[in-house]
Amino acid sequence: MSEIAQTPNPPYYAVIFTNIRTDIEEGYGEMAERMVELAKQQPGFLGVESARDGLGITVSYWTDLDAIKLWKDNVEHVEAQRLGHKKWYAAFTTRIAKVERDYSF
Amino acid sequence: MSEIAQTPNPPYYAVIFTNIRTDIEEGYGEMAERMVELAKQQPGFLGVESARDGLGITVSYWTDLDAIKLWKDNVEHVEAQRLGHKKWYAAFTTRIAKVERDYSF
Repeated sequence: MSEIAQTPNPPYYAVIFTNIRTDIEEGYGEMAERMVELAKQQPGFLGVESARDGLGITVSYWTDLDAIKLWKDNVEHVEAQRLGHKKWYAAFTTRIAKVERDYSF
Repeated sequence: MSEIAQTPNPPYYAVIFTNIRTDIEEGYGEMAERMVELAKQQPGFLGVESARDGLGITVSYWTDLDAIKLWKDNVEHVEAQRLGHKKWYAAFTTRIAKVERDYSF
């Protein structure tokens, strides 16, 4: 189970990745796990939250747009995006958003 | 199953509500369903996406901050927030973010 990300005070950025999978399981679990490990090593990574029940939602948090750009262009991630497009996702939307306020309980 | 929200061109706003439930089921399902119905009737509502597997993530989309404020202060929603705090959620974080870019497949 994913946990609530511990993020610093705003502003920071969120990448909201909402997706619907195909029926193709081959390689998906390993890729998903590897991408989280890899993201954690990226400069500017702040945290990630993930849930799925039919619809999948993954929100990753980043210090700034440059960090998001670097992650998008990471060689291994580019290959995962290519395979995601081709095999694993029937549909997805990615939204890049600036977190202006947050509160927790 | 929730679907990928069909949102207009950015900018617009996202409310990312990440939460962990308590064991208390009483009234939760009805409340969650009612809040989605109610949100859809609010001015400035654009869409909602939701998933849970342990961690729950609900992202609602809004035209602007005023619409989010109106929704936060909606009488029925205020009562749901009070009960959520008291009964249904062990922990949550709410983040208000301005969507600057998006892309879909």
